[in-house]
Amino acid sequence: MAIKRKKISVIGSGFTGATAALMMAQKELGDVVLVDIPDMEDPTKGKALDMKEASPVQGFDANVTGTANYEDTQDSDLVIITAGVARKPGMSRDDLVNTNAEIMKSVTQDIVKYSPDTTIVVLTNPVDAMTYTVFKESGFPKERVIGQSGVLDTARFRTFIAEELNLSVKDITGFVLGGHGDDMVPLIRYSYAGGIPLERLISKDRLDEIVERTRKGGGEIVGLLGNGSAYYAPAASLTVMAEAILKDQRRVLPSIAYLEGEYGYNNIYLGVPTVIGGNGLEEIIELDLTDDEKAQLDKSADSVKNVLNVLS
Amino acid sequence: MAIKRKKISVIGSGFTGATAALMMAQKELGDVVLVDIPDMEDPTKGKALDMKEASPVQGFDANVTGTANYEDTQDSDLVIITAGVARKPGMSRDDLVNTNAEIMKSVTQDIVKYSPDTTIVVLTNPVDAMTYTVFKESGFPKERVIGQSGVLDTARFRTFIAEELNLSVKDITGFVLGGHGDDMVPLIRYSYAGGIPLERLISKDRLDEIVERTRKGGGEIVGLLGNGSAYYAPAASLTVMAEAILKDQRRVLPSIAYLEGEYGYNNIYLGVPTVIGGNGLEEIIELDLTDDEKAQLDKSADSVKNVLNVLS
Amino acid sequence: MAIKRKKISVIGSGFTGATAALMMAQKELGDVVLVDIPDMEDPTKGKALDMKEASPVQGFDANVTGTANYEDTQDSDLVIITAGVARKPGMSRDDLVNTNAEIMKSVTQDIVKYSPDTTIVVLTNPVDAMTYTVFKESGFPKERVIGQSGVLDTARFRTFIAEELNLSVKDITGFVLGGHGDDMVPLIRYSYAGGIPLERLISKDRLDEIVERTRKGGGEIVGLLGNGSAYYAPAASLTVMAEAILKDQRRVLPSIAYLEGEYGYNNIYLGVPTVIGGNGLEEIIELDLTDDEKAQLDKSADSVKNVLNVLS
Amino acid sequence: MAIKRKKISVIGSGFTGATAALMMAQKELGDVVLVDIPDMEDPTKGKALDMKEASPVQGFDANVTGTANYEDTQDSDLVIITAGVARKPGMSRDDLVNTNAEIMKSVTQDIVKYSPDTTIVVLTNPVDAMTYTVFKESGFPKERVIGQSGVLDTARFRTFIAEELNLSVKDITGFVLGGHGDDMVPLIRYSYAGGIPLERLISKDRLDEIVERTRKGGGEIVGLLGNGSAYYAPAASLTVMAEAILKDQRRVLPSIAYLEGEYGYNNIYLGVPTVIGGNGLEEIIELDLTDDEKAQLDKSADSVKNVLNVLS
Repeated sequence: MAIKRKKISVIGSGFTGATAALMMAQKELGDVVLVDIPDMEDPTKGKALDMKEASPVQGFDANVTGTANYEDTQDSDLVIITAGVARKPGMSRDDLVNTNAEIMKSVTQDIVKYSPDTTIVVLTNPVDAMTYTVFKESGFPKERVIGQSGVLDTARFRTFIAEELNLSVKDITGFVLGGHGDDMVPLIRYSYAGGIPLERLISKDRLDEIVERTRKGGGEIVGLLGNGSAYYAPAASLTVMAEAILKDQRRVLPSIAYLEGEYGYNNIYLGVPTVIGGNGLEEIIELDLTDDEKAQLDKSADSVKNVLNVLS
Repeated sequence: MAIKRKKISVIGSGFTGATAALMMAQKELGDVVLVDIPDMEDPTKGKALDMKEASPVQGFDANVTGTANYEDTQDSDLVIITAGVARKPGMSRDDLVNTNAEIMKSVTQDIVKYSPDTTIVVLTNPVDAMTYTVFKESGFPKERVIGQSGVLDTARFRTFIAEELNLSVKDITGFVLGGHGDDMVPLIRYSYAGGIPLERLISKDRLDEIVERTRKGGGEIVGLLGNGSAYYAPAASLTVMAEAILKDQRRVLPSIAYLEGEYGYNNIYLGVPTVIGGNGLEEIIELDLTDDEKAQLDKSADSVKNVLNVLS
Repeated sequence: MAIKRKKISVIGSGFTGATAALMMAQKELGDVVLVDIPDMEDPTKGKALDMKEASPVQGFDANVTGTANYEDTQDSDLVIITAGVARKPGMSRDDLVNTNAEIMKSVTQDIVKYSPDTTIVVLTNPVDAMTYTVFKESGFPKERVIGQSGVLDTARFRTFIAEELNLSVKDITGFVLGGHGDDMVPLIRYSYAGGIPLERLISKDRLDEIVERTRKGGGEIVGLLGNGSAYYAPAASLTVMAEAILKDQRRVLPSIAYLEGEYGYNNIYLGVPTVIGGNGLEEIIELDLTDDEKAQLDKSADSVKNVLNVLS
Repeated sequence: MAIKRKKISVIGSGFTGATAALMMAQKELGDVVLVDIPDMEDPTKGKALDMKEASPVQGFDANVTGTANYEDTQDSDLVIITAGVARKPGMSRDDLVNTNAEIMKSVTQDIVKYSPDTTIVVLTNPVDAMTYTVFKESGFPKERVIGQSGVLDTARFRTFIAEELNLSVKDITGFVLGGHGDDMVPLIRYSYAGGIPLERLISKDRLDEIVERTRKGGGEIVGLLGNGSAYYAPAASLTVMAEAILKDQRRVLPSIAYLEGEYGYNNIYLGVPTVIGGNGLEEIIELDLTDDEKAQLDKSADSVKNVLNVLS
């Protein structure tokens, strides 16, 4: 019974997609196929080849290839979607949503055609709505369509806390619910340094500032870069989700999951605590929320619904 | 006796510098200071922050900061220079050399001012001449100024051979002398798959094609990307040299070293087999060359000298 | 300024000491000197050589040597003490304490003689009293003498919880105070799965059973092995403490620290939450305890004092 | 399509088997089942539990269990056989061979019953004959029954060479053919430091001494330990073979393979250069030998045949 390497397709060869491909290859999670549109085929091949040329030096065995042909994604064990446009000057927010939704539909059809049994992780923004779009278009069970946002939001939160306390990032944990960025619902009471609730170590005012900085974390990077948005931490976040699935680790990670009554919502994708493993989304963990937390989560869910309503 | 983390400064926050910073942080080789010119300070800070935000997810403890102020590089254990301009349309080759040489002089003064005991690894092209420039400007002993080219050239060669034979990159080794790229002098007889000389496994014609592809390896990526040059494999190559120095590994790596009679050359920086460890360049390994190899190396040395003569 | 590899000496080449040496070498934390008494010199050399012969295959650069001569430990950056006897039939508990205390005194004199600036981590049981003995004998400041027990106790607790909930061990944290094993004071309210307090996920009765199993965790292994005690998890625990010190990580880890008023105790070594970094013990974190927790900790402290009183 | 973790069974829970289980778990190659005879069931469970308790600290997700029941090995992706007795005083060499051959037959029947599609790697000595016995008993194709000896022999050789030249073990390669230990046929001309043939760096006399030390490498450890034999380097060697198979890496490794005409031998298991990947033994690499090398290999093959003739 021959053992074959796992196969991962990354749709979208921009900085986030390419960096995620590198990180997954470094961890030898499988061979990686980096996919982009025909116009970008050569640069995609160039990035893939450059990564592969790093493999002898970094000591990883993983084939990385670039393509514009979805046939090359055949029988992927995992597909990650990073494709999509960023908002351009003069583009309304609704135009952005509809443009990216069309992209999601198109790439989903191609993915499903060649890998009907795969699991899909979506990063494209607005991620809650885009994950919903991929779910509907794919016809996949909810277990096999998941969105990423909470791993990244908590990564930023953990970084700021580690810096504040001058402690190892390994010992800081954070917890968020709800949408990405501004809609993020931080559960500070479930966030710790070495197991000690942060509220005991940092003043409420300072914690509020750090939460606010986390909410604006994507914008902070955009503002600094001047041209483009974050990709290292987003790629690392995708990689940890990919690893949890491909190694069947049953990690407890915040992810964007399809809700059927959980937390009181239906027919919506929203950020909740989940268990991620070989089946994709293995469990949604339900927590009792305070009234304030529930109100924030409602607001976050409304915001997602508003975006969904834009979808034509 | 407190133990302090190692400190690495990377001059130039372009793709290669930034990717090298990430790879060194992932390996917890030390804290990394990413340095660029004042005009680029914000993007540099943005990249550094984005990397740092990846650290909780990837599980590495390394501070990564961006700056335009060399004071922040104070007491670096290692400095890597990736700064420099790429050739622009209308720019002569000589102009390029002189422009980058001026940059080397300027950054070297700043490096030396704040880290008089550090070791410097140079990547900026044309790398042999730029390493020479840094050496002269720094006043450092030759042990502490090294250039990178052979690790990258052999990485590409190993990648192509592994693909040709469908074998793990871990078991392919390659060997080059001389300058980077076109001037590369491959020593095929010292290149192996699982210890077996490649000449026994691949026809001479095919090997010649692979050598030629390796020589043009940088150009192949440039051609594919359309806009920009390789950075993943160059960054990985810098990282392996950094690791050899910072962990005092005494690795046998091809590097650009100052020759004082070795291989019959004097007062020149040229790619030769070396031992890299805690002292930087620990040894130059001299090999008997065939007449043909020696002729190729002479040509490569002439080419370096021609560039040096350009330096005003 | 030449960079030299870190040097770690492990006193005691039994299974725990040897396995810790292997794990530290695998992580390239430094060169390892494994030390035992003259009668055990050859087996110690044999284990060290066997480990070193694993290095080309596992790809780590770390010299591992065996010796009975403390001169070989000269200028160690870190010393780990695992030496000591196990209780033999007919030996009273007090005899055991005094025998191991004599061993601690003897090895400490040898350590201090050759590495007056090093940091010492103690594993030998009864570990609270033995760490105290080493502290007194060494004359070192309290920052540089630390005992290990809490990392191991929480590792066992985390394992049992991960198994109970069928979740990744990466997402389970635990928290203990006080002495090792039976005297362990678990702080369940500071123990989580993915940030969620365990009390919400596991019934109180079942949690009590798991705490009890953790308390008896060392005995469970002794009972199964029939002849000997645990060494894999103890060695891993030592390695994480060593890494925190040698890489200056400022990890939040439970360790056995010298108390000067913290938690209301004086002149005693006791398990408390600490920050471990390049200075050894960098901070003791004080928590408010419930009356019940404080009572348990008092009992644990009394138990340590009783052992200290045995020391002649 | 759910992704399941790989499953590895290790037959024999002695030091080598247990250490290999640990190393494979550390690399997250899969869940590990450690199997021994009913009399050893408790110690086997103890070792497995101790390893598992190391997992939260070392950060690996791998279940490790101990058992005496082959049902627990069901559907293993890989089985490693380390079971067998060591020669006891008064036991003839032939008795040893026949005793271990009976053990091989018995464990093979149990393995095949529960994992008819698995691949088997054999370590038990005399390993060439024991691999042959497992092959015959299993009825498996030759691709799926492989023996380990050359990875260990070259690991020792590489260690001694690295020490001799004071260079990183990462840059030393070695090459052997034939049987284990005394019957080893070193191909010095295919052994290198940084790609440079060792003959250019070390005198012939010194190389001969190092080869001789390598041949006696197992005995050197036995002599030092006094009681028992090497297990760290043997376990690392098994782990690299397991990784090559489970990650389908197509590594070029020396292994004990079934020959059907290769090198002029038939119906024998002998150490030759091979390609190891997802299909187990993927290729045997044939090399031209010098007359002297061929004579040595003939002697090695004769030695294996003599052992096979002992088998009743």
